[in-house]
Amino acid sequence: MRAAIVGYGNLGRGAELALHADSDFELVGVFTRRDPASVRTLTGIPVYPADRILSWQGKLDVLLLCGGSATDLPALSPALAEHFEIVDSFDNHGEIPAHIARVDAAARAGGHLALVAAGWDPGLFSLLRLYMGAILPDGVPCTFWGKGVSQGHSNAVRRLPGVSDARAYTIPLPEGPDAVRAVRRPDRSAQRLHRRVVYVVAEPGADPTCLRRAIDSMPGYFAGSDTTVFFISQEEMNRDHAGLPHAGRVLCTGHTGVDGTHLQRMEASLDLASNPEFTGCVLAACARAVCRLRESGRVGCLTVFDIPPVVLSPLSSEELRRGIL
Amino acid sequence: MRAAIVGYGNLGRGAELALHADSDFELVGVFTRRDPASVRTLTGIPVYPADRILSWQGKLDVLLLCGGSATDLPALSPALAEHFEIVDSFDNHGEIPAHIARVDAAARAGGHLALVAAGWDPGLFSLLRLYMGAILPDGVPCTFWGKGVSQGHSNAVRRLPGVSDARAYTIPLPEGPDAVRAVRRPDRSAQRLHRRVVYVVAEPGADPTCLRRAIDSMPGYFAGSDTTVFFISQEEMNRDHAGLPHAGRVLCTGHTGVDGTHLQRMEASLDLASNPEFTGCVLAACARAVCRLRESGRVGCLTVFDIPPVVLSPLSSEELRRGIL
Repeated sequence: MRAAIVGYGNLGRGAELALHADSDFELVGVFTRRDPASVRTLTGIPVYPADRILSWQGKLDVLLLCGGSATDLPALSPALAEHFEIVDSFDNHGEIPAHIARVDAAARAGGHLALVAAGWDPGLFSLLRLYMGAILPDGVPCTFWGKGVSQGHSNAVRRLPGVSDARAYTIPLPEGPDAVRAVRRPDRSAQRLHRRVVYVVAEPGADPTCLRRAIDSMPGYFAGSDTTVFFISQEEMNRDHAGLPHAGRVLCTGHTGVDGTHLQRMEASLDLASNPEFTGCVLAACARAVCRLRESGRVGCLTVFDIPPVVLSPLSSEELRRGIL
Repeated sequence: MRAAIVGYGNLGRGAELALHADSDFELVGVFTRRDPASVRTLTGIPVYPADRILSWQGKLDVLLLCGGSATDLPALSPALAEHFEIVDSFDNHGEIPAHIARVDAAARAGGHLALVAAGWDPGLFSLLRLYMGAILPDGVPCTFWGKGVSQGHSNAVRRLPGVSDARAYTIPLPEGPDAVRAVRRPDRSAQRLHRRVVYVVAEPGADPTCLRRAIDSMPGYFAGSDTTVFFISQEEMNRDHAGLPHAGRVLCTGHTGVDGTHLQRMEASLDLASNPEFTGCVLAACARAVCRLRESGRVGCLTVFDIPPVVLSPLSSEELRRGIL
């Protein structure tokens, strides 16, 4: 399978390493809006200008779109889905149905197949929520995120005037998972038991009190959250906050039995030293699925819910049935 | 969807409760080899003689086969797959490919769809191993079972002369999961870090030393395992070992990054107060999937690996995309 990456930030590099490690992919190159001469890839694969990508039609089996959900993917995914098989990790939960509709229309117009919202949440955690809810219909799957770096929240703080660097962490309250395990029907709001910690490098002369207030009141990001802001030096930022770790947990407790007294608990968790490298691995597995489903004639826009698990694996159906079923 | 249950032991009763709780099923009845007049169902659904089941052709959308893997399902699943849509929980891992081949031939001959080896292992845990291995190809998914009642091992001990009742527990060694989490590439043998505890009610006059030796040396069950046998009274058995709890855990640690130093950990676990009632819930979700896939024209024998997750859920694709993706 001939694959290429579009967008070369943290996620693009993670996808590059994942495809490089998978022997069933040939990684053709990276497409970027930057000057290709200014970009050096981790594995030495070539870099091409993003605006020349349409000249590659017919020469690539799948594109891994590694742009951001806020401004890149809403336009990029439909535009490229008309001409290529694509996978993206669009993660703006509220906008997913509209994104699917746009990508589906474009992919069908061009006779191609797309898979969107593939990562670990949305993505792997969505699958876990689906399986848990399908098996235990009276259960309420609850999700906790962290401790880990929220890249969207970090970027939002970094855009504030007076901020030269920032890193925002999402931290589940320690009592959160136990609260969900303990009660008979957890409210979905239980999964909101999180707090946020933001490390900020302020520009010289910036007023910490004003910055704190600006962060605390950011709608859609920190407003309504329990947020703590620490001001640190750039040296401390570089030394203590260079990584992009993340973690998460999905829990579901259901009840069975004649009188509903049998407690049935399902849990799943991730502990990731590198969030973008793990998400890159999910994108690579999904790219494999897209290539295989396209071969069998599928077009349009799918999500992980539509993918028969067998097509994600590098192993054959026979190997899976014999070895891990 | 009109569903019926074939076989009415612990699993049959679990499936009955699961179908009863799911509003999209109409539970038509139970088929048993026993005298129907001697069987009372938990929910009051009717009981029919198993040898009359072929007269129900065309009147049932799916059968949940709740027999045992040792002697019932190898014959029953192919025999019924030729005439009905079926789901079974065949769990003899080594025999699964042969079972699939037999059921597939029968189902295709009759133009029907079957799903076999659906439970939590094989079943849900198989899916977790597939997803983990597909996302982290250098990881080795390892599985731990217990603490819980092994019904197959309990039955095997119960069949020994001199034994009037028995309950066998599988218990993972406490250091097992940590051993898997800690090492760079865990050997699959790490998942064999289990011990067994067997509680036996001996018949009057039976020699405990001989029984202990007979259990310890049972090939395919206890030979080679660290097994402890306790002799107890029937009163103690009834008081302390009436439940059928089980538990399990799947772990996978992979490495990413240019130099492979980023540890990426995935884990999933079950803690079940009733193993047969949980397995019944899995069978019910799989029965839903079989009905939907049959409607779209599929025939033959599938496993959970082939099932697009969306068809397992009582929710529609739109509800899933909007609500839990």
